[in-house]
Amino acid sequence: MNKQAVYHAIKSNYSFPVSDNELTIRLRAAKGEVRSADIIYSMKYEWTEKRERSPMYLLCSDDLFDYFCIKMALSDTRLAYIFLLHTEEGDFYFSENGVTEEYNFKLGYFNFFQCPYINPGDVHREVSWVRQAIVYQIFVERFFVGDTQDKKEYVNLKWGDIPNPKSFAGGDLDGIRQQLDYLQELGVNTLYLTPIFESCSNHKYDICNYFRVDPMFGGDEAFRRLSSEAHARGMRIILDAVFNHCSEQNPIFRDVVEKGRESKYYDWFFIRGDKPDPEKGNYEHFAGCTYMPKINTNTPAAQEYLISVGKYWIEEYGIDGWRLDVADEVSDVFWRRFRAEIKRTKADVILIAENWHDAYAWLRGDEYDGIMNYSLTKACLDYLVYDVFDAQAMADRLSHILMRNTDQVNRMMLNLLDSHDTERFLTLAKKSGKDVRSLLCALAILFFSVGMPCIYYGTEIGMEGGYDPDCRRTFDWDESHWNKTVFAAVKRLIGVRKKIVSEEINYAAQGGLLLIRRGDLLLAVNNTGSVIRRVLGGKEREIKSYDFMIIDLIKGGRL
Amino acid sequence: MNKQAVYHAIKSNYSFPVSDNELTIRLRAAKGEVRSADIIYSMKYEWTEKRERSPMYLLCSDDLFDYFCIKMALSDTRLAYIFLLHTEEGDFYFSENGVTEEYNFKLGYFNFFQCPYINPGDVHREVSWVRQAIVYQIFVERFFVGDTQDKKEYVNLKWGDIPNPKSFAGGDLDGIRQQLDYLQELGVNTLYLTPIFESCSNHKYDICNYFRVDPMFGGDEAFRRLSSEAHARGMRIILDAVFNHCSEQNPIFRDVVEKGRESKYYDWFFIRGDKPDPEKGNYEHFAGCTYMPKINTNTPAAQEYLISVGKYWIEEYGIDGWRLDVADEVSDVFWRRFRAEIKRTKADVILIAENWHDAYAWLRGDEYDGIMNYSLTKACLDYLVYDVFDAQAMADRLSHILMRNTDQVNRMMLNLLDSHDTERFLTLAKKSGKDVRSLLCALAILFFSVGMPCIYYGTEIGMEGGYDPDCRRTFDWDESHWNKTVFAAVKRLIGVRKKIVSEEINYAAQGGLLLIRRGDLLLAVNNTGSVIRRVLGGKEREIKSYDFMIIDLIKGGRL
Repeated sequence: MNKQAVYHAIKSNYSFPVSDNELTIRLRAAKGEVRSADIIYSMKYEWTEKRERSPMYLLCSDDLFDYFCIKMALSDTRLAYIFLLHTEEGDFYFSENGVTEEYNFKLGYFNFFQCPYINPGDVHREVSWVRQAIVYQIFVERFFVGDTQDKKEYVNLKWGDIPNPKSFAGGDLDGIRQQLDYLQELGVNTLYLTPIFESCSNHKYDICNYFRVDPMFGGDEAFRRLSSEAHARGMRIILDAVFNHCSEQNPIFRDVVEKGRESKYYDWFFIRGDKPDPEKGNYEHFAGCTYMPKINTNTPAAQEYLISVGKYWIEEYGIDGWRLDVADEVSDVFWRRFRAEIKRTKADVILIAENWHDAYAWLRGDEYDGIMNYSLTKACLDYLVYDVFDAQAMADRLSHILMRNTDQVNRMMLNLLDSHDTERFLTLAKKSGKDVRSLLCALAILFFSVGMPCIYYGTEIGMEGGYDPDCRRTFDWDESHWNKTVFAAVKRLIGVRKKIVSEEINYAAQGGLLLIRRGDLLLAVNNTGSVIRRVLGGKEREIKSYDFMIIDLIKGGRL
Repeated sequence: MNKQAVYHAIKSNYSFPVSDNELTIRLRAAKGEVRSADIIYSMKYEWTEKRERSPMYLLCSDDLFDYFCIKMALSDTRLAYIFLLHTEEGDFYFSENGVTEEYNFKLGYFNFFQCPYINPGDVHREVSWVRQAIVYQIFVERFFVGDTQDKKEYVNLKWGDIPNPKSFAGGDLDGIRQQLDYLQELGVNTLYLTPIFESCSNHKYDICNYFRVDPMFGGDEAFRRLSSEAHARGMRIILDAVFNHCSEQNPIFRDVVEKGRESKYYDWFFIRGDKPDPEKGNYEHFAGCTYMPKINTNTPAAQEYLISVGKYWIEEYGIDGWRLDVADEVSDVFWRRFRAEIKRTKADVILIAENWHDAYAWLRGDEYDGIMNYSLTKACLDYLVYDVFDAQAMADRLSHILMRNTDQVNRMMLNLLDSHDTERFLTLAKKSGKDVRSLLCALAILFFSVGMPCIYYGTEIGMEGGYDPDCRRTFDWDESHWNKTVFAAVKRLIGVRKKIVSEEINYAAQGGLLLIRRGDLLLAVNNTGSVIRRVLGGKEREIKSYDFMIIDLIKGGRL
């Protein structure tokens, strides 16, 4: 038996409360080795006297492991437990002692696993609206010009031309507001806007004033109008919190440039020497950009300032979420305080971090709710664009990604195919000799995934673009230029998404097809060069090359 | 290759900062499979352009795994890295993609491991004095009577008689103060006292007033005298914080019993219904004891109250640590706030939790510093008392326990053989047909372990006792009754401990001996029924049955 593969850990993604009295327990073992698994358990203080035993179910598998699961409703949340594994080689116990042939229940209090107690304050609560969310990310400067363009002297890019890093095309918040009909018609109900605060740049990731909407975007009043109208329509708004760094022009940093150690903001940054000198860059900054000095989020006063920013836009404008820029370089001590204060202000505000990797360390319920799920992005590319994964490898990878986090975190993931920080998916597909069909399959996977689907503006009309700044082109409002196939598919998939009620998901591969099941609905993806014929939902189906099919398993028909 | 065994995780016990610019990285693989391992790394934003490569070293092994390690000093703390494993089957990369034969460095930014940034506020700082600490746990009621006994009308147990759960023998804080010479002579420099606050019981784990020292123990003034004198001698004091529950007689709980929902303390407890009724026990309480109502540490006001307790004894009496009773049933949200406030009050206060299991979930730097290391206790019992482990299994287990946590946590562990909550080690040994030699070997292991050795009062004179209340007997001050062998051994081992300067430790088994190396010093334990002869430190040595030997590897001689 592969004892090294057997894994469980308390108070982790392998043992987590989902409410004040419900606990989900997962167990991992090498793929195919454990025929079935039981949990042996009792109230912690009754361990030596009486114990119960319940079977676990096989939740999913990836390339290396099987994951077993049980969901327990507890009357007393102080639970002691070990596992019993049934294998070809016989039965094994698995406890803090590891995998053993025998287990001494008399001395077992030393070595059982435990849920010591479910404290309500420690439960990672799912934000109430995430299951319904259809998110649309807007790079504000490039979506739509609401004000008349001639008032905008700073504009230096003709709408439709290819942008460079210094381009200003004039998109603004009134523009977004004026397109709410369009977005709602598409099916979108949640907007994620790149930063809207005062800043010299077009992207505004270098902020000069965290308490003011940039005049280029219409100022505070334009955001007031947008948030009012969006909320009146039942839509939600997520803003971008850039707390890792600010602009070199930010008055707080300028104060330090001027006064050096005498400035009360000196320890809000990481300065080497008496004074920061933007010429020398003698301070910590973001990714080699000296115009973006790094904020020291270890300093209590800086923490309090940024928390006041976080609360202000919730209290004054009722925003529904923060996307946290470069969140992994910001201190954990800050995020913990920030989360506590934000959730106290409005429990249903979601915190979505930018984090390109396995972010489990931040997703234990005390920092973020979810992240921009670039692992899913990458899997879609590896499967549909680069052909690194076949259907089986893709199913394995998707299961693997799910098992990294708790169920509630998975539901609060922002799932995306591309963003303002990547090449557009369609562009990458074409570069690799693929075409729009790969994008359609990716979109189908996106809308079937657990978590919030997020469309980067323009994806629905087939917009293309390479790396920044090319992925930030102006939205083309001339419908005759739109890719109607993509548009219809996005609209249809949003409709399908709204029919998905089950949060259970199952990934599998069969006869070259990737199969994703959500309750009664089955998605079959054929990423091969050949037609695949297969019985699905009781009928033989023909799925074309580089195409997908959605089947209603109850009604038996295609959706 | 056993791919399932290969493990690394960022921001965990596998990747942790030990200072503002030093990172320790561990890598795990199946035992014996990886000949050597390299780390490939770069500053995060330079990953695609230039990378360095460094070899890791084999840190230790347990029964299933080898653990490789590298300690890196970083000029820029934003590190990207993957591993290169050299095996019999060839070389493999290990990244967030898992174990792969190839790795695409161009797309690798999606899949490398990373240390995103070392924020000073997130570094788990080692308390400055732990490497020198020799701890002595005192059950206050039973150590020494400082006041004249005839003032103590509540005393119902003659000193020396066997206690029952309701016994009062009259031990107090002046008694401890009067024995500081004894303790210092023994070599002890840190006292851990079971609770000293107002309470009706002899153990005082059910507290009535968190801001007053119990009059039975001499009141506040006696503690003032003890802490002053101990600190003047360079000794430190750790007090017992019982925050999971209080006494049913605590005025805070009584207020709720009286006023029900009208009490401002109603939500400081978990009450089912309008009023708590101690007869019915309609509230959460500790381990079936309705006289110990559980405190709701999810309630901010209750949190603030307990934090004020934690700070009071530091600010007023300069205490050096808190031992946290039943810490695992208390909320994480509370411990995080508590830790932040306590460390802000006095950075060098240590937080040691009662937790009988793998407590990694609480030892990531945001809650406790260490725990009562009952896993070590259990390993010593399994090796020396129950003969479940041979020398190899013991070496494996000790390595395994070390790898559960970061280096700094390991150094802040409170290592113990027994406590007021267990049978005494010597008693368990005798029950299993062993004798005092098992205790001596256990003590040798205790004093060689990384972490703070803690002697439960009376161990040094060979005191015995079964479960509570028998493990809480009165200390026998008649020296003629003492076990002189044990006393001499403890004193000698404390002396040896003070010679250990290396925090590196290596566990091995050779020819039936358990070998523990700390820098220049080697401990050899023979837990077999036969004499073992073996060359150690360049000379043939004879280690008697159930005995140990300490060798100075530089000087070559026995210590």
